[in-house]
Amino acid sequence: MAKKKEVNSVSNLKVIPLGGLEQIGMNITAFEYEDSIIVVDCGLSFPADDMLGIDLVIPDISYLLENKDKVKGFVFTHGHEDHIGALPYILKQLNVPLYATRLTMALIENKLKEHNLINQVKRKVVKFGQSINLGCFRIEFIKTNHSIVDAAALAIYSPAGVVVHTGDFKVDYTPIFGDAIDLQRFAEIGKKGVLALMCDSTNAERPGFTASERSLTKTFDTIFSEHRNRRIIIATFASNVDRVQQIINSAYKFDRKVVVEGRSMVNIIETASELDILNIPENTLIATEQLKDYPEEKTVIITTGSQGESMAALSRMASNMHRKISIGPQDTIIFSSSPIPGNEKAVTKVINELSRKGAEVIFQDAHVSGHACQEEIKLIYSLVKPKYSIPVHGEYKHLKAQAKLATSLGIEKENVFILSSGDVLEMNESKASVTGKVTVGDILVDGLGVGDVGNIVLRDRQHLAEDGIMIVVMALESSSGYLAAGPDIVSRGFVYVRESDELMEEASGILYNTVNEYLDRGITDWGKLKMGIRDCLSDYVWKKTKRRPMILPIILEV
Amino acid sequence: MAKKKEVNSVSNLKVIPLGGLEQIGMNITAFEYEDSIIVVDCGLSFPADDMLGIDLVIPDISYLLENKDKVKGFVFTHGHEDHIGALPYILKQLNVPLYATRLTMALIENKLKEHNLINQVKRKVVKFGQSINLGCFRIEFIKTNHSIVDAAALAIYSPAGVVVHTGDFKVDYTPIFGDAIDLQRFAEIGKKGVLALMCDSTNAERPGFTASERSLTKTFDTIFSEHRNRRIIIATFASNVDRVQQIINSAYKFDRKVVVEGRSMVNIIETASELDILNIPENTLIATEQLKDYPEEKTVIITTGSQGESMAALSRMASNMHRKISIGPQDTIIFSSSPIPGNEKAVTKVINELSRKGAEVIFQDAHVSGHACQEEIKLIYSLVKPKYSIPVHGEYKHLKAQAKLATSLGIEKENVFILSSGDVLEMNESKASVTGKVTVGDILVDGLGVGDVGNIVLRDRQHLAEDGIMIVVMALESSSGYLAAGPDIVSRGFVYVRESDELMEEASGILYNTVNEYLDRGITDWGKLKMGIRDCLSDYVWKKTKRRPMILPIILEV
Repeated sequence: MAKKKEVNSVSNLKVIPLGGLEQIGMNITAFEYEDSIIVVDCGLSFPADDMLGIDLVIPDISYLLENKDKVKGFVFTHGHEDHIGALPYILKQLNVPLYATRLTMALIENKLKEHNLINQVKRKVVKFGQSINLGCFRIEFIKTNHSIVDAAALAIYSPAGVVVHTGDFKVDYTPIFGDAIDLQRFAEIGKKGVLALMCDSTNAERPGFTASERSLTKTFDTIFSEHRNRRIIIATFASNVDRVQQIINSAYKFDRKVVVEGRSMVNIIETASELDILNIPENTLIATEQLKDYPEEKTVIITTGSQGESMAALSRMASNMHRKISIGPQDTIIFSSSPIPGNEKAVTKVINELSRKGAEVIFQDAHVSGHACQEEIKLIYSLVKPKYSIPVHGEYKHLKAQAKLATSLGIEKENVFILSSGDVLEMNESKASVTGKVTVGDILVDGLGVGDVGNIVLRDRQHLAEDGIMIVVMALESSSGYLAAGPDIVSRGFVYVRESDELMEEASGILYNTVNEYLDRGITDWGKLKMGIRDCLSDYVWKKTKRRPMILPIILEV
Repeated sequence: MAKKKEVNSVSNLKVIPLGGLEQIGMNITAFEYEDSIIVVDCGLSFPADDMLGIDLVIPDISYLLENKDKVKGFVFTHGHEDHIGALPYILKQLNVPLYATRLTMALIENKLKEHNLINQVKRKVVKFGQSINLGCFRIEFIKTNHSIVDAAALAIYSPAGVVVHTGDFKVDYTPIFGDAIDLQRFAEIGKKGVLALMCDSTNAERPGFTASERSLTKTFDTIFSEHRNRRIIIATFASNVDRVQQIINSAYKFDRKVVVEGRSMVNIIETASELDILNIPENTLIATEQLKDYPEEKTVIITTGSQGESMAALSRMASNMHRKISIGPQDTIIFSSSPIPGNEKAVTKVINELSRKGAEVIFQDAHVSGHACQEEIKLIYSLVKPKYSIPVHGEYKHLKAQAKLATSLGIEKENVFILSSGDVLEMNESKASVTGKVTVGDILVDGLGVGDVGNIVLRDRQHLAEDGIMIVVMALESSSGYLAAGPDIVSRGFVYVRESDELMEEASGILYNTVNEYLDRGITDWGKLKMGIRDCLSDYVWKKTKRRPMILPIILEV
């Protein structure tokens, strides 16, 4: 006979960000109530400057693996890499069902196909306004706007109360595709009482409102009308289907054919067209090979590379590496984007290369952000009226800026939680506090290797990058300990050896003397010998060059 | 008996930028007329992202060395690193006299002392309005304004005509120290006829006027008045003495003691005080150790690190590495600077670290640029009215923006020259054209080594940084060719070996088979054997990991 639970024995809801806080990217948050866990998003982040050779970074999900039986599924807010990109790697460790809106799921499925996982994972497309039940949670998908179609906020209902998670969002009253953000629903849920609001902080430092995507209609029309006699090339983010739609609309209006360049752009346009999210008039799209059949002023090229990525189509055009398109004085190139922090120099390099070929480059006014500014954040707070505020999506300074907004709207300071990844925030109607910490971290992906490059390997790479390596090899007779061959010095990345004869010869002499001295003293502990070699070479090289190459002695016994 | 030259046999003036064009930094330009060469500035640039381990970059001066006897001296526009920083290295190859204004020369002398060159180089301090004669050139120093005191424009008089070189400049009608730019003199020289204007392009894309340094007086006073109860820390460029003066003025007004942090800041304040460029009221400056003797709200710390440089004082404070100053919620930290392109991420990292310690960080409105915007550039053109325009100081896009301004003011398109470093521009009253190209390039400085790291070493460092190294060593009997020891694999920066047993063992097996196969076939060409080792390991590793470590076979003969 089941015992009836007492009303006042309601457990706490735990919110556990496993990534994404105090950083841009790698968004993944667990919500736990008794024996149910659901996970919101599963993003990757791009490697920091000191992660040499690393391709991408995924979250450490030890906590989820330790509680494998509780995890009911992943729910997704939208289809950007920092929200879905780690999924194929994570699913190999934790195969649970996936829930997302249409385009988000289509992009997830593209990934699953690439990783040969498509037949092994349960998944369900959810419509806006619809709810799903996962364990003791109910999750409702609410329409929002963002720089990708089909972005959703989530209302997460638990016995301890409701959490509203905005995902990345902006308020766009006049979006290009689909409806505006469902402000009425936010209000309705708010009216019933919301425990906590987790709101996008990316633009929390910026006053005012983010402009509507539709404000660019006029911008593009003006650009097209002012450049009637030139070829137009527009670089933007592949996933911004609405932006692509607007460019296609202007192209059609001005009777130009459209070429799409860059693998990710081609892929997403294909996916979006299949879903009827993108509407391309007949006879508008042409293949790159057909460019030569049309006058240049009757064509537009939409391309990847707006962030100066070295292998993207625009960079290849700029550096004469593109096989089919070459840039010249007849081109007007528009960056419909703004550089993500850290990419400024790469973008500038591409702009300079393009200008040097005589092209006109436009880098202003052809972009709007996909994130809510201060007035929009205040609007959401005022509709949802949460008890607790948990700023998400952003570096520390962004989270803090949102915290300031929240308190300015009357939320008590002690009810605002700036969390770190790994924090366990427990809450119910009467109180909330950080009660613990779970394992989190960066798992590095390098080629096929997931997690096999760690701090030691990275430190070695940094050392090698900085000053190169000197390898000392010698063969010793194992019985007598006499030198059978060597010691030889081989270096890479240190100095150009052919022009540093004197340095290398002197180093060899010092090395030879040191080795003989050790051997003459009858030392047979090769560890000590290696140490001696490292010390003598390192001292000499530092004195002569003020550099510290890695010194690696290798002893063969014959 | 000297032959009298005919009037119409006037030679051409050659302008030869040896660096600084289409890049930021490494400014150095030769002016040549018959057997006289003078050189304007001698700057360094900071290494590009792909110059791993490099400390700084200096220009290749082969052309000057080939024409050593013609070179009459270096003249300097101002004391920033990108205009004087390469000098100690260059002087070791080409010791000629130096001419500069007071602070510029003092900063040069600090460098010469560091490099033990102070007693070996002739030098002369020049006043504004004064001229010097060098060979057949006369050079006049004209007062300008910039983010460092004592900046000069140069009027370079040659028998073929006058060139006006602005150096880095802005128009500041109300500077903090010294006079405003000598616009009358620009006009006077212009009235007499100027062959060419070489004008700063850094801000040529920005419309309007750059604000006066003095506009910050009110900004600082407001900040001080709004933060009466907090400690104030202000980060700025060490060389901006006027900025430091303004901060000291506000500190004095609000009755605070001033601490100076960061070696370069301490040095420059010392130099500027000796020259009476900086005026510090008595009992205002205190030592860092004395901070504890005053209430926090009665102190200001002026510090280096406004660009997020990892070893600068502010970064050390932010990361708890500063021995004497720790950051807390009582601190308001002001960045009186804007990030130089490429430094955005480093600056953001420091801001986040500071905010996380509870400090308030202000990153707006406490900085003005040191470079002329479009209206100022137009003003200089309108005063000087040159026949030829040669935009300088900037990347290609900046040079092009100035070229556009010049043509908008009526200069013929064919009289505007966007030069590349190494171009030889020959000109006289009737025509000008690029007639040749001289050797130019980046000489890399790494520790004590100047030029001993080139493309091969850099390529190796990049390869090592990306995927690490696998070293294969073995000993072969020289007579028989039998394997006496090995082959052993040692790797660094590739995978964490202790967790990749299987991979390393399998690689060893494949290696062993390959080596034995070669030896069994009686191959004694070690080059072929090494190639075989590289191929088999590289294939295996790529297949298993999708990585390409450097593979380095070493064979010892015993």
